[in-house]
Amino acid sequence: MVRETRYEDQTVSIGSLTLESGNDLHDVKLAYERVGPRDAPVILVCHALTGNQYTVGHEEEGWWKGLVGSGSYIDTAAFQVITFNVLGGCNGSTGPQSINPVTKRRYQADFPFVSVRDMVHSQKKALEKLGIHQLHAVIGGSLGGMQVLEWGLLYPDWMTHLIPLAVTPTLNAYGIAYNAISRYAITNDPNWEEGYYSSDHTPTSGLATARMIGMISYRTDEMFHEKFGRSRKGASHENHKEPKYNVESYLHYQGNKLVGRFDANSYLYLLKAMDNHDISEGRGDLNFVNKRMKANVLAIGFKGDLIYPPEELEKLFYHGSSSQFYLVDTKFGHDGFLVEFEKWGPHIKEKILITNKIEGVK
Amino acid sequence: MVRETRYEDQTVSIGSLTLESGNDLHDVKLAYERVGPRDAPVILVCHALTGNQYTVGHEEEGWWKGLVGSGSYIDTAAFQVITFNVLGGCNGSTGPQSINPVTKRRYQADFPFVSVRDMVHSQKKALEKLGIHQLHAVIGGSLGGMQVLEWGLLYPDWMTHLIPLAVTPTLNAYGIAYNAISRYAITNDPNWEEGYYSSDHTPTSGLATARMIGMISYRTDEMFHEKFGRSRKGASHENHKEPKYNVESYLHYQGNKLVGRFDANSYLYLLKAMDNHDISEGRGDLNFVNKRMKANVLAIGFKGDLIYPPEELEKLFYHGSSSQFYLVDTKFGHDGFLVEFEKWGPHIKEKILITNKIEGVK
Repeated sequence: MVRETRYEDQTVSIGSLTLESGNDLHDVKLAYERVGPRDAPVILVCHALTGNQYTVGHEEEGWWKGLVGSGSYIDTAAFQVITFNVLGGCNGSTGPQSINPVTKRRYQADFPFVSVRDMVHSQKKALEKLGIHQLHAVIGGSLGGMQVLEWGLLYPDWMTHLIPLAVTPTLNAYGIAYNAISRYAITNDPNWEEGYYSSDHTPTSGLATARMIGMISYRTDEMFHEKFGRSRKGASHENHKEPKYNVESYLHYQGNKLVGRFDANSYLYLLKAMDNHDISEGRGDLNFVNKRMKANVLAIGFKGDLIYPPEELEKLFYHGSSSQFYLVDTKFGHDGFLVEFEKWGPHIKEKILITNKIEGVK
Repeated sequence: MVRETRYEDQTVSIGSLTLESGNDLHDVKLAYERVGPRDAPVILVCHALTGNQYTVGHEEEGWWKGLVGSGSYIDTAAFQVITFNVLGGCNGSTGPQSINPVTKRRYQADFPFVSVRDMVHSQKKALEKLGIHQLHAVIGGSLGGMQVLEWGLLYPDWMTHLIPLAVTPTLNAYGIAYNAISRYAITNDPNWEEGYYSSDHTPTSGLATARMIGMISYRTDEMFHEKFGRSRKGASHENHKEPKYNVESYLHYQGNKLVGRFDANSYLYLLKAMDNHDISEGRGDLNFVNKRMKANVLAIGFKGDLIYPPEELEKLFYHGSSSQFYLVDTKFGHDGFLVEFEKWGPHIKEKILITNKIEGVK
């Protein structure tokens, strides 16, 4: 008997939240997507920097459609899958675009800095509001992977499986460097106005630049070479503004596309959260990780990932008796976690069939 | 007997130049540095994107001091070393900041597009004006390496040695991508004013962004990690504009430093010349290279060079009987050609002791 699959696109209120910084955030709401039978085990998906809660999608395809869905590797006929838009995001959760209940105006640059741990705390509260106190798995890549790691450390009793993808235990200097330039581009766009921009004069060129900087770190040089080479648009007159090579058109297109769907302040707050990602912060060295985490771990790294070298993820889980590391051979680099599901989806499918935590082994 | 070493910091006029585009450039001047005995064999140095003619330097140390100088690997007691500021540059050679003799105003964005081949043609004319018709060697890295390759193809009879460093036969898609974002940042800086900016309102933030984008491509992630890690400046209040991590301070510093010494339009024109670098353009496939070049080649690549993979340079010269390729093991990546001279300087020193071309071998 096929159980009924329900689709829910909602918002949950979690009240006040005291942030890691000590600041309080009031009337916090998280927007979420919930797919699958209500009596099935829950898999929590954590999204990346420019992702959102639409993992599966409804009318439009979600960003992880193909990995997650009815009959997919993460089967929404067998599991219910929940994704929250992150705290600080711009897709319905409390973030810089939200109305500050104190001032009755948008937070914009008054929004407090949030951390990956704050994101996790807010999600845990939201799950409890939804009546969920146990997760079958927590899964996500990049900023999502940071959340997965923190979930395993902050709430080790909550889940059976942790599946971090394309992430490292801390953001390294090279990653901070890319973020720093993106931040510089946005905050130096005159339209940014110290974060208090009007909705009809947003820092579009700064945000587009930031997006393009992201794009060159997400894929390998090999991929760029194969996809574009030195192919050109038509024989247009040479000038400094118009793209000449197809790779340039592609970057402009990606930059402009993000501007249409993302808030520059949200981007800045999420970059900061990523910069500050360091699972050892306040906890001592990394050896504690395997001791503290109780879940079964399937860590997945992607060959050629420029900012999140798979070796660092492998090293983190090397000593865990209930940890597995899988390296995906790909030309996509970091973006590997968004494509080629046939390469690594089966490992996840197999893993989440295990219904019990291996407790007491560590 | 030690021969007298002369230092010359001058400009040479080469008259009109017909560019590859078909445009004419009038009253062209190239600024140059010339060091060493006037009767010694001439070594031509070609500089990189933000380099200049001050290879050795006089009052201030030049950018290749340590490799080139009296008693150095390229010994200015035994050779005379000449470096021209490139056509389109901003250190004394004709470029966007020069006065257009027709309009009596600065060219700015009216400056015609120039190619690496145009740079080489202008240098050859300038050398002839200086009474030089034969070169012992042509050497340079990055954009300088592009000039070295073109020198060997455009004027194969002129030199005994070609020493291209940290360069590839064409700029690949990934390199164009970095340039494209840099260009986007400059041309979207409102101060750019379509290239007709006033000297007291220059596109500083765009140029600084471009420089920072360059910096992350010049060195390896490993280098960033070792140099900066996640080390922080003091415990300043978190905000979006001020650097928090030392790697961010470093990038801001480098960005701002370039703004003080470089013209944004020059940067744009040189980026275009790099984008269009393709030694096969108009010449058929790359097999012609070893046939056409007559010089002894010592090609030097640097491990971890993100934009100019050493394998591509190696492949280019693999079949030449008078070609050698040397891979430098380094953590610096692309910037390897500006540091650690002890690693690869000796190879150059040894090579340039050979005073005859191996002709007829190919």
